Parts: sequence; C-alpha cells; structure tokens
Amino acid sequence: MPVPQEQLDAYAELVVGVGVNLEPGQAFGVTAYVEHAPFVRAVARAAWAAGAQDVDVRYVDEHLRKAAVELAPEESLGVSPPWLLDRRESYGDRSAYLLVRGHPDPRMFEDVDGARLAASRLHEEDAIWLRQVSERRVSWSLVSFPTEGWAATVFGEPDVGRLWDAIARTVRLDEPDPVAAWADHIRRLDARAAALNERRFDAIRFSGPGTDLLVGLHAGSRWQSAGEDTAWGRPHVPNLPTEEIFTTPDRRRTEGRVRSTRPLVCQGRIVRGLELELRGGRVVDVRAEEGAEVVQAQVTTDEGAAELGEIALVDGDSRVGREGLTFFDTLFDENASSHVAYGQGFGGCVDGAAELSPEEQWELGISQSSLHTDFMVGGPDVEIDGLTASGEAIAIVRGDAWQL
Amino acid sequence: MPVPQEQLDAYAELVVGVGVNLEPGQAFGVTAYVEHAPFVRAVARAAWAAGAQDVDVRYVDEHLRKAAVELAPEESLGVSPPWLLDRRESYGDRSAYLLVRGHPDPRMFEDVDGARLAASRLHEEDAIWLRQVSERRVSWSLVSFPTEGWAATVFGEPDVGRLWDAIARTVRLDEPDPVAAWADHIRRLDARAAALNERRFDAIRFSGPGTDLLVGLHAGSRWQSAGEDTAWGRPHVPNLPTEEIFTTPDRRRTEGRVRSTRPLVCQGRIVRGLELELRGGRVVDVRAEEGAEVVQAQVTTDEGAAELGEIALVDGDSRVGREGLTFFDTLFDENASSHVAYGQGFGGCVDGAAELSPEEQWELGISQSSLHTDFMVGGPDVEIDGLTASGEAIAIVRGDAWQL
Repeated sequence: MPVPQEQLDAYAELVVGVGVNLEPGQAFGVTAYVEHAPFVRAVARAAWAAGAQDVDVRYVDEHLRKAAVELAPEESLGVSPPWLLDRRESYGDRSAYLLVRGHPDPRMFEDVDGARLAASRLHEEDAIWLRQVSERRVSWSLVSFPTEGWAATVFGEPDVGRLWDAIARTVRLDEPDPVAAWADHIRRLDARAAALNERRFDAIRFSGPGTDLLVGLHAGSRWQSAGEDTAWGRPHVPNLPTEEIFTTPDRRRTEGRVRSTRPLVCQGRIVRGLELELRGGRVVDVRAEEGAEVVQAQVTTDEGAAELGEIALVDGDSRVGREGLTFFDTLFDENASSHVAYGQGFGGCVDGAAELSPEEQWELGISQSSLHTDFMVGGPDVEIDGLTASGEAIAIVRGDAWQL
Repeated sequence: MPVPQEQLDAYAELVVGVGVNLEPGQAFGVTAYVEHAPFVRAVARAAWAAGAQDVDVRYVDEHLRKAAVELAPEESLGVSPPWLLDRRESYGDRSAYLLVRGHPDPRMFEDVDGARLAASRLHEEDAIWLRQVSERRVSWSLVSFPTEGWAATVFGEPDVGRLWDAIARTVRLDEPDPVAAWADHIRRLDARAAALNERRFDAIRFSGPGTDLLVGLHAGSRWQSAGEDTAWGRPHVPNLPTEEIFTTPDRRRTEGRVRSTRPLVCQGRIVRGLELELRGGRVVDVRAEEGAEVVQAQVTTDEGAAELGEIALVDGDSRVGREGLTFFDTLFDENASSHVAYGQGFGGCVDGAAELSPEEQWELGISQSSLHTDFMVGGPDVEIDGLTASGEAIAIVRGDAWQL
C-alpha cells in the first residue's frame, strides 16, 4: 500500500521546514532513488511553497550501478563526470540539500564483486560533499523513505506500510505538532552534549563482547547534537531521525578491537559481524561474518579511510531503539546504538578547526577522506566510559541507559 | 502487465545496436522519464555489453516540472543550470545519446497555465542539443516506451501491454531478425529520398480541408531518410520507428494556411485542430480547437520558432499508419502522416550548409531556433504535389498513397 498523500505532504513539510530548514530564495538540491519519486514530488512542492529559488532533483538508480559493477570496463567504474562535480560544487554556497535514502533492495549487491562494488562509488563527488558538510557551507538533511525491497529486508515481506509507520514514529510525525516536538527533542540532545562537554573527557572507552576500544579525543573536541547551524548561522537538522550526540576524535589515538553490534549496509551490501582492529589510530585488520571485502576495500580507499572520523553516543531509550527493529539502514540503526565512523572527520566539532584547510585539519589530527562510514558498536552489553585526563573512568552508558 | 524482460532486452539491443549504433569505447548518455526505469536498465546493460565507455542516465520527472509550473517564481522557470549545459555539451564530440519518450501522462498539464508551461522548457539545453544534431556531432536516437498514463490516453484504459505490442510492431521487433529488417527498411526509404532528389522540386504544395500551403525549398535541399550518418561517418537511426523522408525548406518561402490532421502533444499538452497561417515564411496566426496558447507561446520564443525547419513525407502504408491509432505522441503520429515542423532546421539537409555557423545558415535561409516542433498535416484527404522550377505540379501523394 502506498503512503497516503496527506502523510507524504506532512513528511515533506517536516523535511523542508525542520530538516534543511529552507530559506526563501535559496537553491535546493535533492538526491534520491528513482523509487522515491512519490515522496520527492511532495518535497518539491513543499520547497517551492517555502520559497525555493530552484528545485533540482538528481534521481539515482541502483540497478544502473549494478549494471556498471557487473559490466563496465574497470577504468569507467566510479568516475564522476566533470558536470556532476560542478553540480555538487554549486550547492556549496548557502544552498539547501536533501539526501533521500532507503535502499530499493539492500540485498541487491550480494552477488557482485566487492572490490568492483567499492570502486563504483562516486568518490570525487562524495569528497566535495563531505567537505561542504564539514565546512558547514550547506543546509542539509538526510532522511529515508520506504521501498518494497527495504521493507522485505526488515520484515521478510514487502510491507511498505509497516515500515512507513515505523519511520513516521521515529521522525515524530505521530506528534500533534511535529515541528514543536523536534524543537524539544533537539533541546534535550543539546543538554546531553553540554553535559559531556563540561567533563572534557580525554578519551572514550567501549567495553563489551569482542570490543575493547579506546578512542582518544582532542582537547578541543566538542560534542554536538545533530541540530546544527550552518557557517552563516542557519539551524538545520542533518538527520531525521537523529538521537545521537557526536564528536570527532583524534585520528591518531584509537587503539584496540571493536565488534559491530548491528548489521551494516555498506555500498549496497549487508556487512554482518564486522570486527576491526586499530593500532596507532589506523585500521590494521578487518574481519566479518559477511561482507568483509566491502569494508576492506573501503578502508584502503585513501589515507583517512582507515582512521576514525566520528564517535557518537546513543542510548537504548531512543525512538529508533524503541521500535525494536534492525532497519538495515545506517540512518536508523546508528540512532538506535552508539557508533563510530571511519573516514572523514568533522572540522566543525573541533575548536578552531572549522576554518582550516583539509591539510591543516589533518595535521591537527582530524581524518580527511572521501568517505565516511558509520557502524554500530553500542548495545545492552556494551559499557561506555569517559576517561579524564588523569585516567579516571566515568560511566556514560550502562545497560544501554544514559548515566550522566 | 509489465513488458516481459526478454522483450525489454530485445528492444534495448535494437535501440543500442541500430538506433544509436553504439561504438566500443563511446560515451553513452540517456534522457528518460523516471517511469521508464525498467527499460533504461535493459538499455544500460545492452550499452555496456556493446562496449560503452560510460553510461550516464538523466532521469526526468514530469511531476516535478508540473510542480515548478504551478509554484516556482517566474524567474526560475526554464532555467538550465550551468552543469546541465556542460553535461549536454560533453556529448557533442562523437558520443552516443538516447532520448526515451512516452509521456507518463499526456493529459498532465491540461489544467496549468500555458505560458508558464512553455516557459518551463529548458530551452538553453535544447538549443545545444539541436545544434549538435544539426551538425551531426552525436550518434543519437529517439525511441518510446509505454507508460500507464500514455496507454490510458490512447485506449481509454491503462493497457500498457496493448500499447507495447503496437510499439513493438512499429519498431519491427515482430520480425525474426529485427536488425536485418531495419537495414531493408532504411534502404526502401533511401530509395524514396533518391527519387525525390532526382526531381529537384522547387516547392511542395499541400492541399486539403483547411490546408493550402506552399513550402519553398532551397536549390540545395536534399531529401533524406531517417537513416543518417554522423559527421564522422557512423550510420545511426535517429527515430525508432521512422517512416519519413524529410528535408529542410527555405525559411523565407512558406505561404498559406495549414490545418493539422492529428492531435499533437506539445509541452505536455494536447493541441487539437491546430491551424497556422504563414506569410513570407513566418507564422502570423495560430488557432486551435484546444491548446492554442502552447503553440502561440512557442512560435514567439525566438526568431526562428515562427519559421519552418522541416518538411517530411509519409504515406498511409507505413507500419505506424497501419496500426490505425492516434498515439498522442509525435514520434509515432509523425510517422503515420506527412508533417512539417516550426523551429530549428537541419543544416545537414542543405548542400554545403552543414559546416556553416548558425548565423551563416540563417543567412542562407535555414531556420535557427531553440525548439523544433513537428505537427501532422497529411492524410487521406490531403494531396501533396511537387512543383518544378517551371511551375509544373507532379503528384507525390494521393489518397495517402505514394505516387512517384
């Protein structure tokens, strides 16, 4: 059953009004899968109604990517044409941009060559995007819309309506006033971030089955909620849903082993039971029960891909966690669980780094990469502590519950 | 009922192998509606298999255009972003390009403002495209794929299977060897063009109900079939189906009145009973039973939009004519009936003009415009004569049957 038009419109208004928080006169770009057309059309109408100066949608078709992965000559895989880079650059100056996720079929790439799949990523376009995000030059949001293939992966049957209902609750569309509910929610997350920033932890430690990981922070690492301001002071919400507080660690100071607690969909492949070992800040070993080769290819993409760019804390009481589902979609699963990401760090999360060049950020210890891949490491059996500069351990999460 | 995969694949191979006649190592671009994704995916696989160096698909969503026509600020309508023009330019150097038509809903724009609809056309992108085509710098083809909305317009019910069967016959997919059938067909059309070229007519006259039109030709006007060669000598078939032979007239020498014999879908609107009056080569009056304002807006778009750029002859025995349908799609209806087009002429159809600049072509009497709109003027009641330089009239078509 398709999502009713009234709910499409309400979601579109939330995404445009709270997610990207579109300003009148702003250029507005969208990347979405062809399967999302009904939602994208509602978004476009909401954006024009909000005063957009332009609405430009790039529809992506994962079946075309699969055809390329299977059939394209090696040298053609993952090439971003110059016009595509120009398009992406054009949104780096006070524009608004929406990414719509929700894969048409998370199992689509199960039977293709992992190295060719990783090579098919448009890494040059991604690099421009990650830089714009890191420099807060775009008012952006990442949201999801259900597809039959995604619903089948979650429920074993293509029950789009059931998946939509779960998504609608996680993005607070069930509230009488979703916009006000989001303002409240962001305030709560901001309070958590403020509490952590007061402590000025030197490192965060994750301990649990298969996990003993120490992630060193910068003296200037600042915890943030996913309610952000652009460089020109426009508030927006980069992820709907969002339940995390996060920062960027020192790329040189991660040590130990970590086991993912939820499956990860990466480059259209499901990765299960991922285990990474990090030494001196770098991933030195990748194992997984399934899909290891995708992550192995990713972490060797460029220098920063093997370093951590983000650490984020979420407890089990999040709206996403309460759904009790594995969504097989990072936007949701990362908001049900504490997580870390390898790849690009966020200059805006480290005092004084936002204005620095990529090279200067790297010197300062902020990972620079054309990719940024989150994976979930929290859960009921994982203890999370903050370590002070003097080595004292303070409990942050126990039994999936927030302690501070 | 969706089109069976086997038939999708056969059509895709025909389009890639005969339509654009893709060369190994060539860049291949596609513009299609989101509704065409199943066919586009088959085309992409056929293109990679044929050795494409790149396959880049631009999905267009007419519902987004409708949202813009209804809601966008005036100054945003029809603006081609720079990257879109760069993308289009990038295909002007020995590339292959496929346009997929077959509107998602030919009645979609019935209730919108005609002037805003006309203004929403991406005329800058179109102008680049028409120049590339005119200069034969791209190996291109225009084909159609059925949609529910299109089938409903033709049959009164969304019978996609029935529309697909009709399309499949018109493109000779019912032949045991469609590729060989196309080679034969193009030879037959070439013979017709050769017979007309031998006569060196000075003008063509259409006479019928509501029509008394004299179209002056250049001394160097050459009749061609839609089997073309690119400037670098690569044969391709720009329209599937195609039944016409055509040339470009002298833009200054059309006189009289003409009444269209079939409805025309123009800019997403159905135009019925179109009547044009031309004086000194220029449209001076536009009337229609329905949709006149779309054509009125078009012919005032630029200087050349009010002049004829093409004249084409088709008899009633064409494969498209034999289907006995009004397709509400110019690609088909123009191949069931003789037709003319206002707007851009084809430099390649006039001796010595192919290499000239747009300004030089215009001086020579070849219309230059950012648009090119065909409309149907032939039928059982329309007599078509060729006039020699001495004024003798020679019957070309009588009772919808070829006479030469």
